[in-house]
Order: sequence, then C-alpha cells, then structure tokens
Amino acid sequence: MKRYNISLIKGDGIGPEIVDEAVKVLDTVAGACSFTLDYKEYLMGGIAIDETGVPLPTETVEGVLKSDACLFGAIGGEKWDTLPRDLRPETGLLKFREEMGVYANLRPAIVYDELVNASTLKPEVIEGCDIMVVRELIGGIYFGQPRANDGQKAYNTMVYTKPEIERIGKQAFEFAMKRDKRVCSVDKANVLEVSQLWRDTMEEIAKDYPAVELTHMYVDNAAMQLVRNPKQFDVIVTGNIFGDILSDTASMVVGSIGLLPSASTGDKTAIYEPIHGSAPDIAGQGIANPIATIESAAMMLRYSLGEVEAASKIETAIRNVLKDGYRTKDLAAYDAKEVVTTAEMGDIIANYI
Amino acid sequence: MKRYNISLIKGDGIGPEIVDEAVKVLDTVAGACSFTLDYKEYLMGGIAIDETGVPLPTETVEGVLKSDACLFGAIGGEKWDTLPRDLRPETGLLKFREEMGVYANLRPAIVYDELVNASTLKPEVIEGCDIMVVRELIGGIYFGQPRANDGQKAYNTMVYTKPEIERIGKQAFEFAMKRDKRVCSVDKANVLEVSQLWRDTMEEIAKDYPAVELTHMYVDNAAMQLVRNPKQFDVIVTGNIFGDILSDTASMVVGSIGLLPSASTGDKTAIYEPIHGSAPDIAGQGIANPIATIESAAMMLRYSLGEVEAASKIETAIRNVLKDGYRTKDLAAYDAKEVVTTAEMGDIIANYI
Ligand SMILES: CC(C)[C@H](C(=O)O)[C@@H](O)C(=O)O
Ligand SMILES: CC(C)[C@H](C(=O)O)[C@@H](O)C(=O)O
Repeated sequence: MKRYNISLIKGDGIGPEIVDEAVKVLDTVAGACSFTLDYKEYLMGGIAIDETGVPLPTETVEGVLKSDACLFGAIGGEKWDTLPRDLRPETGLLKFREEMGVYANLRPAIVYDELVNASTLKPEVIEGCDIMVVRELIGGIYFGQPRANDGQKAYNTMVYTKPEIERIGKQAFEFAMKRDKRVCSVDKANVLEVSQLWRDTMEEIAKDYPAVELTHMYVDNAAMQLVRNPKQFDVIVTGNIFGDILSDTASMVVGSIGLLPSASTGDKTAIYEPIHGSAPDIAGQGIANPIATIESAAMMLRYSLGEVEAASKIETAIRNVLKDGYRTKDLAAYDAKEVVTTAEMGDIIANYI
Repeated sequence: MKRYNISLIKGDGIGPEIVDEAVKVLDTVAGACSFTLDYKEYLMGGIAIDETGVPLPTETVEGVLKSDACLFGAIGGEKWDTLPRDLRPETGLLKFREEMGVYANLRPAIVYDELVNASTLKPEVIEGCDIMVVRELIGGIYFGQPRANDGQKAYNTMVYTKPEIERIGKQAFEFAMKRDKRVCSVDKANVLEVSQLWRDTMEEIAKDYPAVELTHMYVDNAAMQLVRNPKQFDVIVTGNIFGDILSDTASMVVGSIGLLPSASTGDKTAIYEPIHGSAPDIAGQGIANPIATIESAAMMLRYSLGEVEAASKIETAIRNVLKDGYRTKDLAAYDAKEVVTTAEMGDIIANYI
C-alpha cells in the first residue's frame, strides 16, 4: 500500500477546525482508494508565536520540506497585529513561502451551478465560469530589496528577473494546455519597466506553446473585466501583488469564499490551503465552512500525490452534497435544505465518498 | 461678467467628439448663469506625436498652467503603442500630471437609479451607492526612482514621503467632512513598508478630523469588498497603483463606464476628464457616450470655477435626460426610449438646461 507523508499546519482561528474536517475526508478517501496518509503537525503563525516565540519555527521549515505535501489552515489574528513586523504571523507566512520555494500560487475560481446565486454578480454573468489564476508568489514587491521606512520616507522594490518570470509563465502555459488553451498575462507595462520585462518574457515563452493563445491586459482593465465579463478568462498569469488583488476579485465572481481552495507549488514541495483567512471572530463555534480546505486537500491529492481518482471522488462528493442542499451557515441563504455545522459537513462529505 | 480661461485637450480616438459635446453644454450653462468661458486648445498624446513629434509639447504644459482649468478627452491608440517608451502617449500623460502637480485624482462612483440595471452586479447590491475614490496621482510606483529594465532584470520603486501622504490624506478627510464622514484608507501594510508609513500617516491626520471615522483595509480585501458590498464605502483614499486598480473596479459597480467623470487637482491647476479611454475602435462613428465628459465639465465648474449652480444644472439635466430614456448606443440595452448619437446627446442635455 502506498504511503504519503503529509504535514499539517492548522494555524490560528478557524484553522484547526477546518483542517480536522479535511483530514476526516482524506482518511475516508484514502481507505476507499487504498493508500495511507501519515500526518505530522507543525506550528506556524500566532500559535507558533505563543508557543515558541517566533511565527515560523525552524522545525516547521525542515519538517514540511521533508514531507510530500503540506495542508495548511489559516493564520493570524488581531492579538498578534501589534507585534514588531518581523514577529508577525504574516511575516512567518511570507518566509515560509520563500523557504518552501513555492513560486506558483494556483487559485481556481469555478462557479458551481448549485451556488450560482451566492455571488453578488448576476447569474448570467458568472454561470459556467472557470478561471485559473496563476500568481507568482515568492518574488515581486513582496520580497524585493531594498525596502525601508524611516518614518519620513518609505519604499519597496518591485523586481523580477527573467528566469523568475519564465518559470511562472511556463506553469501558466502548461495549465492552459490542459484547459481552454488561453493565457491572459496581466501587467502594467504602459507604466512599469518591470511589467515590460514581464510582457516581453511571456511573449518569448508563448513561442514554445503555439497551441496556446496569449493575450495581455493592464491590471486596471483586468480588475474591471473580472467584474464585467469573467467568462472571457481561462488562465490568468500575473505577478505577486497584482495576483493578490486579482485572485481576491476572482473569488468574488464565485461569491462564496468558503469554497475556494488554492495550491502553492514549486520545485521542492507544495502547500494547499483555503483562500479565506483565519476568521478569529467565528472560531470555535462550529460554523466555519470546511469545504475550501477539503477542496484544497483534493488539489493536494491530484497535484502532489498523483491520486487523481481520490481527488475526483472528493470533488464529486462536494458537488453532490451542495446539490442535495447541505450548507454551512455562511451559505444558508442559498438554496439550503439543511444547515449543518463544520463537523457535520465533514461527516456528510466523507459519507458521500 | 465673469470670464474663465479653459484649456481644452481633445486628444485621440473619441476624444474630440466627446469634448465638443461638453463644450456645447458648457456654453449653454454659461449663458444661463451669466459667465463666459474662453477656450484654448492644446495638443497631447498621439495627435501631438503626429503633429509635433512628442506626446507632450511644452506649449501644452505652459498653456494649461496659465488657464483656470483643463478639460481633457482621452489619448492613445494602437498606432503609437510600438514607439519607444518615452515617446508614447501614456508617457506624455504621466509627465503632464506631474508638471501640473495634480496629486489628487477624484473619481466619484455614483449609481443612478435610472441605470441600476447597467451593472453586472445585482441591483440590490448597488442601489444608492455613492463612493468617492481619492487616488494619489503623482507619486508611488508610477514615478519612483530608481527604475530600470536591462532585459534580464527589471525593477520599479514604490515610494512615498510623509508630506506626499499628508496632502492626499487631507484631501480625503476634507471630502469626507462634506459627505458621510467616513474614510477608508487602502494599503498593504501587512507586507509593504511604504504602506506602513501610509497607514501611520493617515492615523496622524485623523487626529485633526475627530468627526471623521477612519478605517484601514488591505488592498486585496478592498478589491473584494467593492464587489461584495460596495455600499459600505464613503471615501476611499489610496496610493497611485492601488487607486488605478480600485477606481476601475469601482467603476464596474456603476457599470456604465461612459458615465464616469474624474478630476485631478493640486495646488496649481486641475484637469477634468472621463475615466474611459480613447476607444479608437468607435471613433468618428457618432456613437460615443459624451456624458462622462459632460459630467467632468460639471466637476470643473464646481471645483475649479466655483460655479456651483451651473454644475448642478448640468447634473440635473443629465439625470433627467437619462430618466426620460435617452441613451447612446453603449446603454441602449438599459431602459432606452430613444437611442441617440453623440451629438444628439449633447444637444438634448443642452436643451434640458
Ligand atoms: C496575509 C497576506 C500576507 C497574504 C498575501 O498578501 O499574500 C494573503 O493576502 C494571501 O493572498 O495569501
Ligand atoms: C493610461 C494609464 C497610464 C493611466 C494610469 O494608469 O494612470 C490610466 O489607467 C488611468 O487610470 O488614468
């Protein structure tokens, strides 16, 4: 029987609750598909600060690098927001991404027919929408040097090298090959030099993928087009900060942020996590929606472990559970037949497998 | 009789058509309110490149600085997109903004009841929405030094000084005082040093405006909230690139980009322009919507000339024209009783005054 080593980072707020449900579903599907998952838990974020004094303990970095993949809940909370910048949960997260070398952040935004009313956008605008946002995750202005703030003047550097753009660009084109064969590269090349290099490099990569159509869009227009006509997009590829903004915009196309998974991949390992945050205000009440985390677990099976059948089983179960009207509180207003708790949702999805 | 000197920059594409209609309406309202507008035309953008070899002739800079205000159409087009960066229309526009010292870009996003269906967002989400986006326009990553692209590595600098943040912040608070007294400052302070200075400075300014409520939002969340629940916002203040993205997102809340005006103001002069572009594909066909430009002219009367009554007259006329079902082609699908040309729309609005 195949065995995989999975790192779990539950994190803060609702993190532990939603990761527990994902583990429940993972174990069920592992049983059904005859493989075993060995989990090991690591600390990160606020809980790591409280227990070890730093947001990203060395153990976590070393442990996750040795595992096959990492399932991650969410981190952060007001409690730690006033700490010095280098001790904050977010700093730990950014350092973690960098140490893991996960340069490609993949955020699918797929509209489920069952929840087409959950978006603030009109149903006819979003029906059937299926976008993959490919965001560069360990470069750009997030990590650029120099950076400083002396209280009178502050600056950051948005920087990309050609190899950095090439590796993320290739990822986007590879995805497009398996989808509708269209890549829209988003930049601000009419203003920024770094965007000009981005655009020129995308054009070069495109030569190796003659079957894929490459278009370019300025970031302001892309933000607009995601609201005006999201169905025009197949794969969107963009830099770190633009991707941060646009993938959140894309999530609003779907509407229900409690459904949206993400994968961060690179050459060493991969991290799977819901796109929503740690929501400390609803932690411990049993009302968090675990589906985004369970979807992330499915992505992990598909992309990191190659357990494609198991991944599909989870995805199908989720769709059927939604079709049958089970909803956590966040989606109670959208064709719910029964409103269930976090743990009940995990049980029901596991049962459907 | 009061006389004002107005610079006109018609620009490229549909620019000349829409500015002509705004002038028509301005002259009508000037007659009705007993003042005179003296116009002088200047070149900028593609037409300036064609006629003078540069996108921003010195004459334009000097002329506009001497005038009371500038009404601006739109510039740019594919024809000039392959020119070297420093000869492109956009470079002219950025230099123009800088030379004019217009640090505050004001973009109201107001949902007209008559066109509540023109947005892709559900009517109940946007009804009554009235947002003012205050974007810093001559700093940040648009102008930051150093910047370079050697073909292997490229970078730009996002930089703000405290005085730059103070002057735009004050503008936002002043606007809020005349509105619902709420300022939402948008940044990425969890990642960027420059955003931390932005946030700290906004907090300091807030002390001088105890009646105004200041909140902070990360830019990714703000992009999301503009789609999820735009009515929560009163005044949004943010830096140059975030403002570029968010004001376009906000325009989609309104839906009809042909309706949205903007003002760029500073200590020397002010520029008024529609937020839409030069739309070369529909130029010369008489189908462009001149309302955004006419609205911009109304803003000019209000903010630069102090002709508040005349401004209101224009705004009321536009609302009534829309209420009575007159639409240009772009809005023909939204409760149109009669579809009219660019020039007819100008005539009708002038007649309603
Ligand atoms: C928490 C924050 C640093 C992070 C980011 O900006 O990358 C988050 O917004 C995300 O998108 O994962
Ligand atoms: C044309 C471009 C340089 C400009 C900008 O980015 O400022 C435009 O998008 C705008 O918002 O006025």
